[in-house]
Amino acid sequence: MISIVLIGTGNVSRHLFDTFSLSTKIKVVQVVGRNEKALRYFSNVSTTTKFNTVADADLYIIAVTDDAITKVSKSIGIRNGLVVHTSGSVAMNALSHYNTGVLYPLQTFSKDKKVDFKTVPLCIETEKKTDFKLLKEVAESLSKSVYEISSKQRKTIHLAAVFANNFTNQLYHISHEICEQNDVPFNILKPLIKETTKKLETLKPIEAQTGPAKRNDQETLERHLAQLDSSEYKDLYRSLTKSIQKTHGKKL
Amino acid sequence: MISIVLIGTGNVSRHLFDTFSLSTKIKVVQVVGRNEKALRYFSNVSTTTKFNTVADADLYIIAVTDDAITKVSKSIGIRNGLVVHTSGSVAMNALSHYNTGVLYPLQTFSKDKKVDFKTVPLCIETEKKTDFKLLKEVAESLSKSVYEISSKQRKTIHLAAVFANNFTNQLYHISHEICEQNDVPFNILKPLIKETTKKLETLKPIEAQTGPAKRNDQETLERHLAQLDSSEYKDLYRSLTKSIQKTHGKKL
Repeated sequence: MISIVLIGTGNVSRHLFDTFSLSTKIKVVQVVGRNEKALRYFSNVSTTTKFNTVADADLYIIAVTDDAITKVSKSIGIRNGLVVHTSGSVAMNALSHYNTGVLYPLQTFSKDKKVDFKTVPLCIETEKKTDFKLLKEVAESLSKSVYEISSKQRKTIHLAAVFANNFTNQLYHISHEICEQNDVPFNILKPLIKETTKKLETLKPIEAQTGPAKRNDQETLERHLAQLDSSEYKDLYRSLTKSIQKTHGKKL
Repeated sequence: MISIVLIGTGNVSRHLFDTFSLSTKIKVVQVVGRNEKALRYFSNVSTTTKFNTVADADLYIIAVTDDAITKVSKSIGIRNGLVVHTSGSVAMNALSHYNTGVLYPLQTFSKDKKVDFKTVPLCIETEKKTDFKLLKEVAESLSKSVYEISSKQRKTIHLAAVFANNFTNQLYHISHEICEQNDVPFNILKPLIKETTKKLETLKPIEAQTGPAKRNDQETLERHLAQLDSSEYKDLYRSLTKSIQKTHGKKL
């Protein structure tokens, strides 16, 4: 049985806790957090708000916001077990312990939406080779997609994820706003959005591109720009059109 | 039985033809196209490359590129039936006939990827009210999502679709390129991409946003910019970050 102390009470910690609860090989022995109210989420487990009363365990998972990682790492004192954080963008040496690592779940977690952890890619890394086996075993109990990812690769993934997730979502927001302001139900676009991502299963994004920018359809491009009221959206329209045309070897 | 002449041999025409073939109420009586080779796709139907030998039908569907619509419309001569085009961005009066309309399938069609037409939203409109019933019946035989959409709304949808599909796909391409250049498999991002769009089923895009831009995490934003070699991608990163921060009420 692998014993784990979970530190942090946010979305990642909750998802980890719920998934560990289903395991027969892993036991969460304690959950640590500053906020007593947030700790109430974690049932049938010892909880504490005192970082100097952290229990002994094989693995300590620090699932807190990026800028709190170093501080929290220091506050749990010297530990014999492996200490990992769950961030895509924070260096491994932000942890002050002797045995360190990273368990980065590559997914977007929202409070109001459950995620099936089994399908979440887990990027794992340990500073010392000898610690890798333990982290791998824990990761494999959580998900069927476990990747050994170096710190350098993790930095890349985090950046690529911002383009594929945050920026994409902002484009959905703009699309949603354009629809709302013109009495069109955004729902009508959902099958298109679904198909755009479904295409990625069989085509590279560059192969899947369509539309007026790729076709260099000047008339449509100009009409679209005229339709946009916001100068911010006009600029984004121009930049993204230019980017598509550069990729597909055309000139504006 | 409703008789249809299909004009054009591209992806939309092929998808329409395949779906009409399954209907007992609709019969494609002829397919018209300039390219003899492309016409070979259409089996068990009369085909012609001569626009002055177009058959009589209840409905003529002009599924050609946007800038060819007016020319093709003229080339088929005076017609008693209803003449429609399938474009999201071309005005209905680009058609020179007496009875006109639009049947705009809101989907991205690639040659190498079959689309289930039943799930494709169809935006329909006719210039004369009396023609609407016929077009609606045809549309409903193709898809379970048929919307009566005005020309003004259609213009909005086409613009919103560029943001939600073409621009999003370009961000996938950039993400893909960043991964490839740094020895990371793009596949690792696919569950994240899937979840980003799945969230739209229950949340508005504005509610689903996460990441360093929304959190105003300056350290990560600066590190990401430093990671990007291309000045074009740096600019896009800055513009999209600014857009997210404006939406979520933060200042860069």
